[in-house]
Amino acid sequence: MKKKIAMLPGDGIGVEVAEAAAIVLKAIEQQFGHAFEMEIGLIGGSAIDDSGNPLPEETLKLCRESDAIFLGAVGGPKWDSNPVGLRPETGLLGLRKTLNLFANIRPVKTYSSLAACSPLKHEVLQNVDMVIVRELTGGLYFGKPSERGGRPGEEDVVDTLYYKRSDMQRLIKAAFDLASVRGGHVTSVDKANVLESSRMWREVAEETADIFKDIPLNHMLVDHAAMRIISSPSSFDVLVTENMFGDILSDEAAMVTGSLGMLPSASFSEQGLHMYEPVHGSAPDIAGENLANPIGAILSAAMMLRHSFSMEEEAAAIENAVEQVLKSGVRTRDLAGGGETYLTTSEMTKEIVNAL
Amino acid sequence: MKKKIAMLPGDGIGVEVAEAAAIVLKAIEQQFGHAFEMEIGLIGGSAIDDSGNPLPEETLKLCRESDAIFLGAVGGPKWDSNPVGLRPETGLLGLRKTLNLFANIRPVKTYSSLAACSPLKHEVLQNVDMVIVRELTGGLYFGKPSERGGRPGEEDVVDTLYYKRSDMQRLIKAAFDLASVRGGHVTSVDKANVLESSRMWREVAEETADIFKDIPLNHMLVDHAAMRIISSPSSFDVLVTENMFGDILSDEAAMVTGSLGMLPSASFSEQGLHMYEPVHGSAPDIAGENLANPIGAILSAAMMLRHSFSMEEEAAAIENAVEQVLKSGVRTRDLAGGGETYLTTSEMTKEIVNAL
Ligand SMILES: CC(C)[C@H](C(=O)O)[C@@H](O)C(=O)O
Ligand SMILES: CC(C)[C@H](C(=O)O)[C@@H](O)C(=O)O
Repeated sequence: MKKKIAMLPGDGIGVEVAEAAAIVLKAIEQQFGHAFEMEIGLIGGSAIDDSGNPLPEETLKLCRESDAIFLGAVGGPKWDSNPVGLRPETGLLGLRKTLNLFANIRPVKTYSSLAACSPLKHEVLQNVDMVIVRELTGGLYFGKPSERGGRPGEEDVVDTLYYKRSDMQRLIKAAFDLASVRGGHVTSVDKANVLESSRMWREVAEETADIFKDIPLNHMLVDHAAMRIISSPSSFDVLVTENMFGDILSDEAAMVTGSLGMLPSASFSEQGLHMYEPVHGSAPDIAGENLANPIGAILSAAMMLRHSFSMEEEAAAIENAVEQVLKSGVRTRDLAGGGETYLTTSEMTKEIVNAL
Repeated sequence: MKKKIAMLPGDGIGVEVAEAAAIVLKAIEQQFGHAFEMEIGLIGGSAIDDSGNPLPEETLKLCRESDAIFLGAVGGPKWDSNPVGLRPETGLLGLRKTLNLFANIRPVKTYSSLAACSPLKHEVLQNVDMVIVRELTGGLYFGKPSERGGRPGEEDVVDTLYYKRSDMQRLIKAAFDLASVRGGHVTSVDKANVLESSRMWREVAEETADIFKDIPLNHMLVDHAAMRIISSPSSFDVLVTENMFGDILSDEAAMVTGSLGMLPSASFSEQGLHMYEPVHGSAPDIAGENLANPIGAILSAAMMLRHSFSMEEEAAAIENAVEQVLKSGVRTRDLAGGGETYLTTSEMTKEIVNAL
């Protein structure tokens, strides 16, 4: 099959892990006789440095002409004190909004070979296999007004948590669709005892559950969910929630596994142009040192093959290769205990390609 | 000393643990020659049942005439589908707002004798001793509008995250004051890469740090904080954040200790009338069964003695009694492993009184 992929490495270790993903995609291309055309686009800090725009028009154009988008990571201290329009995150948020990437999908799985990396006790980690479905184009992230007001001596500020009912509907439906495929159940997380938006959210969740009659639904308050994710992560299957709650809970859940560097994600649009990126950030402290864990990026590429190109066999091949390499005891720095030896980014990538 | 205490047991196990706190306060009264006048007031579900008002005028009057307020817990499934004005939480939120209880203080400490209860590994739990300072009268909890709009077929909804700069100032100052007393440092948590309110928050934190020159300040994004609380809880000293972030992170941090039932809290006003309550909720599933852990409530009473009545010795006496009892191996149900024997609420209370 011929596919065009927009490669957006971004900043920091994003560049290194995108490179790793590209190497693995090329190996798959050869092995399975595909033709992946990968074209690089700028986004985030590197795009600001190049053109003063964190999301250049050419990058958007490249994405629109592609069959899928791969993103490394954006951000870094260099741009942290820039005005909002000149921040790397503004590029990422703009991409999500412009391409309507409304559903962020984050599988959270523990690898038994990596239990030592988790801050959680071994017994708590057993059978953790959940997916967080986070709304990505609404809520506090995009609501207007988001501005200062008041008068000198009594300044104030407002941000706006805004949702259309239809935004909730399509996102919650996506979560139920996923739970159907998994044969699982849905936990809808909100703060219905305080927020009007959460009360609407709960209604929409109920309405959606009426359609998916064989998928059990339960509601959970966000503060309670923050506790359950630690105390009983294996009790979750599909967790669905709004943008800001999802930002917090999905990072919390990622840390539960102790292997943040391993976790992939996908962001789905209704139009079929999806984006894939590792869960970790740009990690400026180790950028350029060939120390990053490429596995989150490589597994994101696997998700791309499965969800955008329907290449199930190819995706599974990558996932199996990763599992095999980990079982063999090989580690990157983030996964190695103090004193243990570890591989560089490119060495780990080579191991995975060899295992393919 | 003569002191008047407004006792608001509330709902569910709130009633049982408030009773336990009262018993311990009476023991302190006798032992140290004080006179505590404890008068009971209704709030939450029980107040709704009694008068149709989750925060009756007499309860507010009682609080205003008292030197301190003790709250058990509010809420329960019985009132969950009531309209907003007739919900237990509305009583609690009204009390916070009316009495200007703007700073919620939650110490998070692990008891080495209870390490078995935590989902976290033993080594991660070492030296955890943090205090979360959460803003309690602003943000998404009270901002207007909080309402539905749109038109049939395209309904929408808005909640409002609103802060006055002065609200941030007094809260962040309270956090620095606390860090001064502890000889510690401040971590200010926000989402400054997305929210305008967080950018103002960060400014105020910087300004406050300029005044407290010997207290180190660092900023942390809320998603990152959700990870660090699990991976490195001992790295925090005073964590200060806005209302909703604080709701989520403080419950997460409570679960880290594995002993939610043990944790106390205080809510401070500027006027000096403070409220004390255990961190746990009303636990409807075990309400009325004499199974609740009374220690969170009893330690909240200790905080009351210390912070509202300047009775340091008396507060320390309670805290030592609790520690002694736990060391002796005695447990309530929530702390006991499967198969272990445990004490009822009243038996545990008696043990603590005996140890006093
Ligand atoms: C970089 C930031 C704006 C972003 C977010 O908050 O959505 C990130 O934390 C994420 O989760 O992808
Ligand atoms: C009951 C609820 C409104 C409340 C809150 O969200 O503040 C509770 O979760 C708390 O933390 O005290």
